[in-house]
Amino acid sequence: MVEYQDILGAYERIKGIVNNTPVMTSRTLNKLVNAEIYLKCENFQRIGAFKMRGAYNAISLLSKEQIDKGIIAHSSGNHAQAVALSAKLLGIKATIIMPETSHKVKINATKDAYGAEVVMCKNSLEARQRTTQNLINRYGFTLIHPYNNDNVIAGAGTAAFELLNQIEGLNMIFAPVGGGGLISGTSIAAKGFRKDIKTYGVEPKNVDDAYRSMKSGKIESNETINSIADGLLTTLSERTFSIIQNNVEKIITVSEQEILNAMRFLWERMKLVVEPSGACSLAGVMSEKISVENKKVGVIISGGNIDMTNFFELLENKIK
Amino acid sequence: MVEYQDILGAYERIKGIVNNTPVMTSRTLNKLVNAEIYLKCENFQRIGAFKMRGAYNAISLLSKEQIDKGIIAHSSGNHAQAVALSAKLLGIKATIIMPETSHKVKINATKDAYGAEVVMCKNSLEARQRTTQNLINRYGFTLIHPYNNDNVIAGAGTAAFELLNQIEGLNMIFAPVGGGGLISGTSIAAKGFRKDIKTYGVEPKNVDDAYRSMKSGKIESNETINSIADGLLTTLSERTFSIIQNNVEKIITVSEQEILNAMRFLWERMKLVVEPSGACSLAGVMSEKISVENKKVGVIISGGNIDMTNFFELLENKIK
Repeated sequence: MVEYQDILGAYERIKGIVNNTPVMTSRTLNKLVNAEIYLKCENFQRIGAFKMRGAYNAISLLSKEQIDKGIIAHSSGNHAQAVALSAKLLGIKATIIMPETSHKVKINATKDAYGAEVVMCKNSLEARQRTTQNLINRYGFTLIHPYNNDNVIAGAGTAAFELLNQIEGLNMIFAPVGGGGLISGTSIAAKGFRKDIKTYGVEPKNVDDAYRSMKSGKIESNETINSIADGLLTTLSERTFSIIQNNVEKIITVSEQEILNAMRFLWERMKLVVEPSGACSLAGVMSEKISVENKKVGVIISGGNIDMTNFFELLENKIK
Repeated sequence: MVEYQDILGAYERIKGIVNNTPVMTSRTLNKLVNAEIYLKCENFQRIGAFKMRGAYNAISLLSKEQIDKGIIAHSSGNHAQAVALSAKLLGIKATIIMPETSHKVKINATKDAYGAEVVMCKNSLEARQRTTQNLINRYGFTLIHPYNNDNVIAGAGTAAFELLNQIEGLNMIFAPVGGGGLISGTSIAAKGFRKDIKTYGVEPKNVDDAYRSMKSGKIESNETINSIADGLLTTLSERTFSIIQNNVEKIITVSEQEILNAMRFLWERMKLVVEPSGACSLAGVMSEKISVENKKVGVIISGGNIDMTNFFELLENKIK
């Protein structure tokens, strides 16, 4: 089980390497929900998402033997890039398993900018896991799991820890829920910092496994994974579920339209590029399912990686 | 002529009202141009652009009589909203002349959010000026010009002044050039702060009146105004031209593609929503027409107001 001390330790390890991301505010937003809202902008984190915190913490805690053999991760998204960059910074060999449907931009960034070995596989969880396991068996790589890993969770919790040190007197913190790593770390950081700070998880209604798990008391899965919040499609692990049960006040759900509305507010009004998963926590605040009135509310904006090719193609056509 | 003291005075007047905007950096950008680049993010300014600084400064310096009669401005863009919001904050009646081709969103924001009176006119400079003059003759309004106004220029210069106080030891500052208000204020702030700081203006090649004016020694105009940087289509005034001649090291030009490339870098890599005009200054740095090697370089990102309807329509279709 991850403790508050682990988050403090992680923070010592990663500070100076990961960005101390800024906290942004908006008068319009505060008026809209009648509260003081503080956005912890992990879209400004290295590789564009909070994943850098957990990956760097976990990898820097590996043993000499593990380091020599190298590490492996499977992800088409932010975790892939976080592991690749962390490994590069620490001088460790990384292999990333990516589904063949991944964006070319992401594959290239993982390979070229971060120097990882990329191995392609079919686009199914089963194929990813099998390919990963084969390589582990063959080369003795250490798997860096995106959330079912105490050191990854402790690293993820440093975002909330940093926020709590940037803004005095927060009453509550909202974070998105996918596999549960971020919300787990956030809730431990919050409770450890001051025990009356409440943590809320926000999940897309279309993949509401965490919401249902909290109701039923056992880990539920999603029948379909149809949400624009492509970073939140995974289900909880035993590890994250147990932390959430112990520490998180409530999981609330938001519709796809609510996610888009929050995202649009962030882009248009606040000039922040945030991916749908990253806008989910704000969507939770704006849905007013939890009363935030007159409260000081922290909101973890988890990342800003989104394909903008279409948008820029429209602009390119304009100048032709 | 605007002096450094006027910028200091403007800063005292507007601080606490306008945002002290953050300075953003990027390791990737620094590596790309082999320099330390500091982006002064006026896209995070109130109303989404630096224009708030000049408008608020100018309006708060009006006489009791001028205040009683009310103010007027003509603009379809950021200056309209800056004047409207400043007037609202100062409790003054504002009338804004907008061309009938203006985006409905902007018209509504000017009316509803900022409470200004909006008068529509045909979409030509002549129509705007005539409508404005008619109302001035009739009601005695005071015109708040977007750049041909010393107090607006002094206010605009506070962005660079703030940046110089945020980042020690800057060697040079880049700013976009439209009517010349921002580059004028920037150059006075830079010279006044430390006389060896050089200021560079960046202009779209398609509307390069300032560039040609510097060559010919007289104010040149643009035959066509075809640039994606819709905030930079205006020409210099006598006032701004004279300041630029005295203070600005050089005006350089960038192509439409260079503007889009800089904008895309800001959005994709730095997660900053910046309008084409606001990306122009960075496009100038990235064009490498001026050597920035090993220098500490300030870059004024002037604003972030851009219509994203198309982009969000694509996303809305995804969730249907």
